[in-house]
Amino acid sequence: MALHPDRLLPIEPEARGIARRLFAEVETLPIVSPHGHTEPAWYAENPRFPDPAALFVVPDHYIFRMLYSQGVPLEALGVPRADGGAVETDGRAIWRLFARHYPLFRGTPSRLWFEHSMQAVFGIEDRLSDANADALYDRIAEALASDAMRPRELMERFRIEVIATTDAASDDLRHHDAIRQSGWNGRILPTYRPDAVVDPDRPGFAQALAGFTALAGEPDTWEGYLAAHRARRAYFRERGATATDHGHPSARTADLAPAEAARLFDRVRAGAADVGERELFRAQMLTEMARMSRDDGLVMQIHPGSRRNHNPLVFERFGFDKGADIPGPTDYVEALRPLLAAVGNDPGVTVILFTLDETAYGRELAPLAGHYPALRLGPPWWFFDSPEGMRRFREVATETAGFRNTVGFNDDTRAFLSIPARHDMARRVDCAYLARLVADGRLDEDEAHETAHELAYGLAKQAYRL
Amino acid sequence: MALHPDRLLPIEPEARGIARRLFAEVETLPIVSPHGHTEPAWYAENPRFPDPAALFVVPDHYIFRMLYSQGVPLEALGVPRADGGAVETDGRAIWRLFARHYPLFRGTPSRLWFEHSMQAVFGIEDRLSDANADALYDRIAEALASDAMRPRELMERFRIEVIATTDAASDDLRHHDAIRQSGWNGRILPTYRPDAVVDPDRPGFAQALAGFTALAGEPDTWEGYLAAHRARRAYFRERGATATDHGHPSARTADLAPAEAARLFDRVRAGAADVGERELFRAQMLTEMARMSRDDGLVMQIHPGSRRNHNPLVFERFGFDKGADIPGPTDYVEALRPLLAAVGNDPGVTVILFTLDETAYGRELAPLAGHYPALRLGPPWWFFDSPEGMRRFREVATETAGFRNTVGFNDDTRAFLSIPARHDMARRVDCAYLARLVADGRLDEDEAHETAHELAYGLAKQAYRL
Amino acid sequence: MALHPDRLLPIEPEARGIARRLFAEVETLPIVSPHGHTEPAWYAENPRFPDPAALFVVPDHYIFRMLYSQGVPLEALGVPRADGGAVETDGRAIWRLFARHYPLFRGTPSRLWFEHSMQAVFGIEDRLSDANADALYDRIAEALASDAMRPRELMERFRIEVIATTDAASDDLRHHDAIRQSGWNGRILPTYRPDAVVDPDRPGFAQALAGFTALAGEPDTWEGYLAAHRARRAYFRERGATATDHGHPSARTADLAPAEAARLFDRVRAGAADVGERELFRAQMLTEMARMSRDDGLVMQIHPGSRRNHNPLVFERFGFDKGADIPGPTDYVEALRPLLAAVGNDPGVTVILFTLDETAYGRELAPLAGHYPALRLGPPWWFFDSPEGMRRFREVATETAGFRNTVGFNDDTRAFLSIPARHDMARRVDCAYLARLVADGRLDEDEAHETAHELAYGLAKQAYRL
Repeated sequence: MALHPDRLLPIEPEARGIARRLFAEVETLPIVSPHGHTEPAWYAENPRFPDPAALFVVPDHYIFRMLYSQGVPLEALGVPRADGGAVETDGRAIWRLFARHYPLFRGTPSRLWFEHSMQAVFGIEDRLSDANADALYDRIAEALASDAMRPRELMERFRIEVIATTDAASDDLRHHDAIRQSGWNGRILPTYRPDAVVDPDRPGFAQALAGFTALAGEPDTWEGYLAAHRARRAYFRERGATATDHGHPSARTADLAPAEAARLFDRVRAGAADVGERELFRAQMLTEMARMSRDDGLVMQIHPGSRRNHNPLVFERFGFDKGADIPGPTDYVEALRPLLAAVGNDPGVTVILFTLDETAYGRELAPLAGHYPALRLGPPWWFFDSPEGMRRFREVATETAGFRNTVGFNDDTRAFLSIPARHDMARRVDCAYLARLVADGRLDEDEAHETAHELAYGLAKQAYRL
Repeated sequence: MALHPDRLLPIEPEARGIARRLFAEVETLPIVSPHGHTEPAWYAENPRFPDPAALFVVPDHYIFRMLYSQGVPLEALGVPRADGGAVETDGRAIWRLFARHYPLFRGTPSRLWFEHSMQAVFGIEDRLSDANADALYDRIAEALASDAMRPRELMERFRIEVIATTDAASDDLRHHDAIRQSGWNGRILPTYRPDAVVDPDRPGFAQALAGFTALAGEPDTWEGYLAAHRARRAYFRERGATATDHGHPSARTADLAPAEAARLFDRVRAGAADVGERELFRAQMLTEMARMSRDDGLVMQIHPGSRRNHNPLVFERFGFDKGADIPGPTDYVEALRPLLAAVGNDPGVTVILFTLDETAYGRELAPLAGHYPALRLGPPWWFFDSPEGMRRFREVATETAGFRNTVGFNDDTRAFLSIPARHDMARRVDCAYLARLVADGRLDEDEAHETAHELAYGLAKQAYRL
Repeated sequence: MALHPDRLLPIEPEARGIARRLFAEVETLPIVSPHGHTEPAWYAENPRFPDPAALFVVPDHYIFRMLYSQGVPLEALGVPRADGGAVETDGRAIWRLFARHYPLFRGTPSRLWFEHSMQAVFGIEDRLSDANADALYDRIAEALASDAMRPRELMERFRIEVIATTDAASDDLRHHDAIRQSGWNGRILPTYRPDAVVDPDRPGFAQALAGFTALAGEPDTWEGYLAAHRARRAYFRERGATATDHGHPSARTADLAPAEAARLFDRVRAGAADVGERELFRAQMLTEMARMSRDDGLVMQIHPGSRRNHNPLVFERFGFDKGADIPGPTDYVEALRPLLAAVGNDPGVTVILFTLDETAYGRELAPLAGHYPALRLGPPWWFFDSPEGMRRFREVATETAGFRNTVGFNDDTRAFLSIPARHDMARRVDCAYLARLVADGRLDEDEAHETAHELAYGLAKQAYRL
C-alpha cells in the first residue's frame, strides 16, 4: 500500500508531468488551517494522544458511520452512549473490528487520509487487515507514547503555520489564554460560533441564552442580546479570532425592522415561537451577524443545509454528530437576498458560503460569488471534501467565479493526525485540475504555478485575514 | 462496426491496461439478474422469438421514443393502439423505418446494446443502414427460427445463473410453477410487485383491490388487506421470490397509528380519498411493506420519481410505458424518515433505493446508505443505465457510501437478447472506474480485482439473498 | 499566450489525434448564428467600433461582474449609471483597470474568448498585463480605425453565413429594412422577442402594451392583443424572422379556456393582477405563442430560470443586465405540461428549451426532448456556455436525447468580435466529446465526422429553418 507518489494527479503522462511540477512547489508549503475542530486544550496542555482506536475510530464519524451502515453496532466501536449505557472500552478490540471491515473504505477519502497518516506519521506502509491488526496497533500505540507525538511537536512537524479552533459564543477561551501565556509560539486562533445562542431548536437553548446575556452583563432584551454578541465578538477578537461560523439548517436570511426583530426575540426567548418564527429568528441573526462583521471585520462563514440527527434511535442513544446528519436541497438565491441587500455590495465584508447541495455551485453559488463583492465560496465540505468532490467543485465553479472568489482549503477536522493528509489531498487535486487546464491550452504554466500557490496557501490567509 | 475489444475502457494506455486485466477476470462470470421484466411464459413454454422488428423495435420504449421524438408515428412502428386502431404489422416495413433512422441512436446506450446483440447473438458486424436493412432482417429472421434461439437455450448460452421476473401481487405464478414442474434446471424467480393493489391512482384499482383480498380469502378491511399481502408474499416466497418491488411517484413514506391507517384504507377502498390521501396511502404502504420485509426476509426495492404518462395524447392512444414517463425532482431525506425510523436500524432488513434524480445520489442517497444499516443503493436506472450514467454514479456515490452499500447491476429489461449486452456494459464501466482509482493511486490492484468481482457478481447475490 | 493549436481537445494522444481530424473538417465551416444580441444598426450603418474598452469591457457583463465581485466599482469601469451619475469615460483608464485584474479571468471562458479575439482579429499574442496594457490598447485602437474592422467586413472575414438579432415586438425593424434596401448580401434576420408586452412585471409594461395593440391597430382586448401578436409576427416574418424568443422567470405554461384567458388579460391590462395572476399570464402566453408557431412556422425559443436583478443597489444605480441575474431551480416537467398537451405531438412545431439549471438536463429535459416531436434542446446557455458546461451537456443529454434533438450552437452574444471565438470553442468541445466516443469504441469515426458537421453547421440551419 505504500503511497503512490503521483496519487490523485492526472493519469495521462503529459498532464501528470505538469501536475508534478506544480505540486512540487506547493507540497511543502506551510499549512494554513482557518476552519477546524481540534481541541484548544491540546495546544494548551500538550497531552499525549491515547490509543490507536481512540485516535482513529471512536471520534471519527466518517469511520464509524460506514461500519454502522454495514451492521456493526456503534457500541462495539466504543462510541459513547448518551444515556450512559455500556460500550466497548478495549481499544484493541475496537481496532480489530475496524481492521476486519477495512475493505469497506475502498474508494473513500477516509481510506486515503488514514493511509497518509499511517505512512507519514508512523512510517507504516502495510495495508491494515485482520492479519496485521494487532501488530499495527502495537506500533502505533508505541509511537503515541513518545514526546514527538504530542500536539505542539506534531504541529511543528506538520508545518501548521496557523490553526483556528471552533468555540462556543459563551466560551471563556481559557485554553487560548493559556497558550498565549505559555510563551509557545504556535498560532492557535478561536472562532466565534454562536449557534447555541442563535438557534432556538438546539436543546438547552433557553438556558444558553440566559447565560449568554448574563455573561456579557446585558439585559434579556433584543438590544441587550445584540450588545452581548458585540461584546463576545470583541472578546474573541482580542484573543486572535478573525472569523465567525454559523451552522444553520438553511441559508435563509431576513432583515426585519428593529421593532419587529425585538418582538420576535421576545417570543423566542419566552419559548413561544413556532417553527416558522424560529427559522425566521435564525434568518434574522445571520443578517445581524453580517452587519457586525461589517463593523468589526470578522469574516463570516455560513454552513447550511444539513438535516441533523435524521436517525431518532441513534440520536436518542448516542446524541449529536454520529453520522446521521443528511443533506437536503438548499436554496441560496432567494434565501440570501436580505443579507446581501444589507452587506453584499461592501468589499470590506467577507461572507464565505459552504454547501452540501452540489447543484447549487453552478446554478446559484458561483453566479452569486461571481457578482457580489462580499461573497466568497468555501471549499467542498463534509461529504464532498474528497478527490471527486473537489474536482467537481473546480470544474463547475471556476468558469463562473474564477479562483479568487474561492478561499483555499479548510481541513474542517477534529482528527489532528489527518490534517496534513487532507491538505495534501487538496493540493494534489487542485494541481491536477490546473495541469489539465495547462495541458489543453486553457492556462499558461506560469499562471498555473501562481494559482497553485494561491490555492494552497495565499487565498486562505487573505480571505480569513490571517 | 465490429465491437471495439476495449470499448468503454479508459483511453489512456496505462489505465486501459489495468482495466483490461480487471475485465478479463469478470467478463465471463455468470449473470445474476435480480430485477427485470422478461416474461415467465418464455421460460415455461420456450417459444421461438418472433421477427426482428417484434424483437428489437416494437416492445422497446428506448427505441420507439427516440424515433417518435423525430416525427416517426408510433403507428408506423407497430406499437399497438390501446383503442384498437390500425398500426403497421409488417415487420420488415418497421425494420426498414428503424434502419433509416438508425443514426439517431449515435451516442446512446440503445445503440451499444443493439450492436452487442447483433454481433454476439447473430454474428453480424455490419452497421445497420438503409442499404443493408433487408439483408440483416433476413439473417436475423433466419437465425430466430433455430432451436438455439429459444429462451432456455439462450439463457444457458448467456450464462444466466438466476433471473428474476416482476409479477403482479395477484398473479398465480402458473408459469413459475410450470418451470419447476418441467424439470428444467434454470433458476427463474418471481418478484412481488403490488403496485396495482397499493396505488389508488392506477386505473382499475378498486377492482384489483377487491380481487386481491378475495384471492387471499380475507375481508375487505385494513387488517384483511395486510393479511392478504402477507399471504401473497408467502405464496411468492414459496416459489422462490427473494424480493419485492415498488414503483411509486415519490419516495414518501408514512407510519400512521393503526386506527388512522385503517380509516385511510376505508376511504381509499371507497374511492373517497383525495389526492393527498392517496399519496399518504402509498406512503403508509411502503412502511407496511418494509415491516413485512423485516418479518419475512424479502428484500424491498423502491423505484420512485417517474411522472408517468406525461403525454395525454400518447397515453390515450397507446396506454402505459410508451416512452412518455418523465422524471422529476425526488426528495428522499424527508420522505424516508418514517420508514427508516421503523426499520432503518435493522441490519436484517434490506431496502434498495433507486433514483431518476441524479442530484439525490451525492446529496441524500449516498449519505443515507452510508449510515443506515438497512439501506443499499440500487444501480443507475432507466435513463442512467448508460456508460456516463454509471460512471457518474460511481464517482458521486462511492466516496460517501463505498462499494458495499451498492448492490451490483440490474439489467431491468424485457429485451431478452440485450441482457448480456447490458451486463457487459456495466462490467466494463465498473472496471474502467476501478482502473482509474488504481492508476492514480487510490486503490491497490488486488483490491480492484476483488471489487470488480463483487460488482459483477457477488454483491447482487448477497444483496438480493440469492 | 499564443493560442494552443490543440486547445480544448482531449489530452490523451490517441483521442487528440481523432479530435484533430474531426476539427480540421469543421474549423472553417461558415458560422450560423441563429440567436444573438448584436445591433442591427451595425449592419445597416457599418460604423467603426469605438475604443478597446468600449468594445471589450464596458458592455460585457461577463467581464465587469467578475471585476465587481473583487471590489472594482462599476463606475470605474465606465458602466453607465441609470440615474445619470458620473462614471469613468477614459477608455484607456478602464482598459488599464481591466489589465491590472486580468488574472481574475484564469479558468473562465471570458479569458479564452478574449484571447482568441486578440490573436485572430488583432494578431496579438501577448498576454494582457499591467506592463503591456498601454501598448495593446494602442494597437487595438489603431486597428479599429481601419475599414476592415467594420461590421460588414468582419462578418465576411468571420464567415458568418447568417446571423439573427433579437428585437422587441414593437420594433419597426427599420435597420433590417435598410440592410435589405442597401443591396448588401449579408443575411441578418430579426427575432420576435415579445417579453416587454407579455411580462406584466417588466417596468413600463402598461405603456408598452397600449402601444403594442395600437401599433397593430387592434383593440385593447384579449382578442385584439392576440391579433396584434399575429400581425407583428407576420411583420417579422416578412423581414426574414424564423424564430421567436421568450425570456421568462420560469418555464410555467398554461392553457386556459378563452373566456378565462380574456378575464386574466383584462386584470393584467388594468394593473390589477396579483403576483400569481401575472405568472399565470406569462404561462398562458407561452402556450398562445406555441399555437401561433404552429400556425406560422416560427421556431419558439424558451429561456427560463433567471432571477433577474438580484442586487437592488446595482439595479437602482445601473439598471438591467449588469451581472446580477442569478439562476434558480427550474421545473420543466410539470411546467410544460399544458403547452406540450397543446402542440407537443406536432412534428411541424419546434420549441427549443434552454436552461440555467443543469440538473434539469438529465432528469427532465433530455427525457422530454427524447420523446416529444416538437421539443429540441438548446445549447448550454450563459454561465454554461463554456468548455466544462458544454462537455457536461453532451455527457448528460446525449445518452437520452441523442444529437438530433439538439440544435447546434448559439453564440448569444452582443460582443461581435467574440463570435468566431465562441463558435471555435463549441466546435472544439464537441469534437473532443466525439473523439472520446470514438476512442473508447462508442462511435465509428465516419459517424463522428458526420455528427461533427451537423453540430457545427447543419443542425442550426435545420432547427431554426434557415
